[in-house]
Amino acid sequence: MSLPTTPSATAAAATRLPLIAAATGATPDRRPVWFMRQAGRSLPEYREVRAGHGMLEACFDADLLTEITLQPVRRHGVDAAILFSDIVVPLRAAGIDLDIVAGTGPVIAEPVRDRAGIATIPQLLPESVGSVARGIGTLTAVLRSDHPGTALIGFAGAPFTLASYLIEGGPSRNYERTKSLMYSDPEAWHQLVGRLADITIAFLRMQLEAGVDAVQLFDSWAGMLSLADYREYVQPHSARVLAEVADFGRPRIHFGVGTGELLAAMGEAGADVVGVDWRLPLDTAQRRIGGDRALQGNLDPAILSAPWAVIDREVRRICAEADAAIATGARGHIFNLGHGVLPETDPTVLTRIVELVHTL
Amino acid sequence: MSLPTTPSATAAAATRLPLIAAATGATPDRRPVWFMRQAGRSLPEYREVRAGHGMLEACFDADLLTEITLQPVRRHGVDAAILFSDIVVPLRAAGIDLDIVAGTGPVIAEPVRDRAGIATIPQLLPESVGSVARGIGTLTAVLRSDHPGTALIGFAGAPFTLASYLIEGGPSRNYERTKSLMYSDPEAWHQLVGRLADITIAFLRMQLEAGVDAVQLFDSWAGMLSLADYREYVQPHSARVLAEVADFGRPRIHFGVGTGELLAAMGEAGADVVGVDWRLPLDTAQRRIGGDRALQGNLDPAILSAPWAVIDREVRRICAEADAAIATGARGHIFNLGHGVLPETDPTVLTRIVELVHTL
Repeated sequence: MSLPTTPSATAAAATRLPLIAAATGATPDRRPVWFMRQAGRSLPEYREVRAGHGMLEACFDADLLTEITLQPVRRHGVDAAILFSDIVVPLRAAGIDLDIVAGTGPVIAEPVRDRAGIATIPQLLPESVGSVARGIGTLTAVLRSDHPGTALIGFAGAPFTLASYLIEGGPSRNYERTKSLMYSDPEAWHQLVGRLADITIAFLRMQLEAGVDAVQLFDSWAGMLSLADYREYVQPHSARVLAEVADFGRPRIHFGVGTGELLAAMGEAGADVVGVDWRLPLDTAQRRIGGDRALQGNLDPAILSAPWAVIDREVRRICAEADAAIATGARGHIFNLGHGVLPETDPTVLTRIVELVHTL
Repeated sequence: MSLPTTPSATAAAATRLPLIAAATGATPDRRPVWFMRQAGRSLPEYREVRAGHGMLEACFDADLLTEITLQPVRRHGVDAAILFSDIVVPLRAAGIDLDIVAGTGPVIAEPVRDRAGIATIPQLLPESVGSVARGIGTLTAVLRSDHPGTALIGFAGAPFTLASYLIEGGPSRNYERTKSLMYSDPEAWHQLVGRLADITIAFLRMQLEAGVDAVQLFDSWAGMLSLADYREYVQPHSARVLAEVADFGRPRIHFGVGTGELLAAMGEAGADVVGVDWRLPLDTAQRRIGGDRALQGNLDPAILSAPWAVIDREVRRICAEADAAIATGARGHIFNLGHGVLPETDPTVLTRIVELVHTL
């Protein structure tokens, strides 16, 4: 365990991390790379550790979440660990009755669909995520000691995506109940999403206080919305979350799937790094986002089952497009997938990608 | 029953149909409107007729498909009937072992994943869809006689979407097997998709010969691809389908979900009408598509459960955006949803939308 460091010492150390350098416009020693959902079912060591433990149990157990978060760092040599968690963890910690069911996803016992339900949404008390904070403490110490080039990224779901789970009761195809509430009672909608933003802010501030080097705000399903609806119903709340963690001075990454039309608005919400899915070349994304945000992405996770020659070509294409984006104003590039690692992915392929990206 | 008409008489009559006028740059008497999946579970009369009959049975029974196709015309007064069918119908007719399972979707008995499997894909013989042709014959007669302003739109899945079902074995979230074949063996991919294009062409030509006034080629899942992959692996096959039915001189509508990045390429594939999902305003879509295609869309089907005031506002917004698109070169506007009617939709709302669109 390393000793506690002062904020300025932390900041100086942090800029030596390739991921933080790329996110802040400094020059990284190498192109940083990590993979969304790198800690998970693609790893045999993960399946072994998870055996006999439910998903939520693993997310709230300091030892389990520490081990699972570190596994891909040890195996792949990625430039970031991402806190092993789930979008619904802070909701559960706040006291909302839910579970994560294998093969289904989150299941909310009493979906929230009206003002009475909204009024019952609790606040997140830091002590309810004390085990997560303890895990982060261990993780930062282990990373500094054993993997000094590796950043720790905190994790939270954005208010819209949290709202969609709470309203639909779980994963959804069309989000009709979510949109119905949004359109039929905008005041109630903003009240709900505002309360969820409070929870997200509390969860992220706890992680930052515990020592994460950066945070990623996942608005997984924002791409289901038109730009006009995103701006009216979602962006103000995401912007508040990002603003209310800005005082830590650590990079804030913002990502959603299928957000080609929303990228500029997601950048304007206050992100330092905008994640891009595989549908849009990074240089095109840069033209949409404008300004000097860094970009994260964007290899199609479905490509990971193709022959290596295909993957090699695609990784090089993405790095070239990222360099073109940097040449026209992007702050930096963090290599990643365009969505999470699929469970059936061969993890040795991920290791090879890390090695390749570090040469590019 | 009306008497058979000559092709030229048919063409002259067809341009009097509002939908055909809008699709061809003529001036329709009213703004045409229909709804994707208007024939289906949102209608109690559909659920009644389907009771005791499987989905595939209904698609191959001339009487059932005729009745189901006509139901939304009678109820809503839409400007088009769309042939009641399913994307996998021509595959089944060609002899591929599959079923449509309630709650799941198509299930392919032996998914196609290699060259040996591709070599077994049969051709579609017109006699295997004779019942569909007979249904179309009845439908055109009934529509001319009882609903003279209503066009009949034929229906087929585009080769990529057919391929994705065949390869994955059914609906998919990530299309990893599809993309894996595409990337790992492009030659096999093009052979497969070429064979499926043959089936689609045969199915659409049968429908056109039987008398449909227009066709819609659904590439439901093309939006899972980047533009570069779409152009390389998909567009040539869709373009061949559209070219090989061009000699009928009837409008060809082309639609997929989440295709904001692909709209120009889908137009270039040869469509007369490009369908747009709800994510993109129609005037923005027009700027991407360019040229003088007509546009179809694009009310979010999830909005249909919102209060009428919201729907009213959204319908007016879409028509205004469509008019702006026409002012900058779009050939015309066919009002529709941005995806299919959801099963839980109140059908009386659809009727009100038809009435409203006809005033705009």
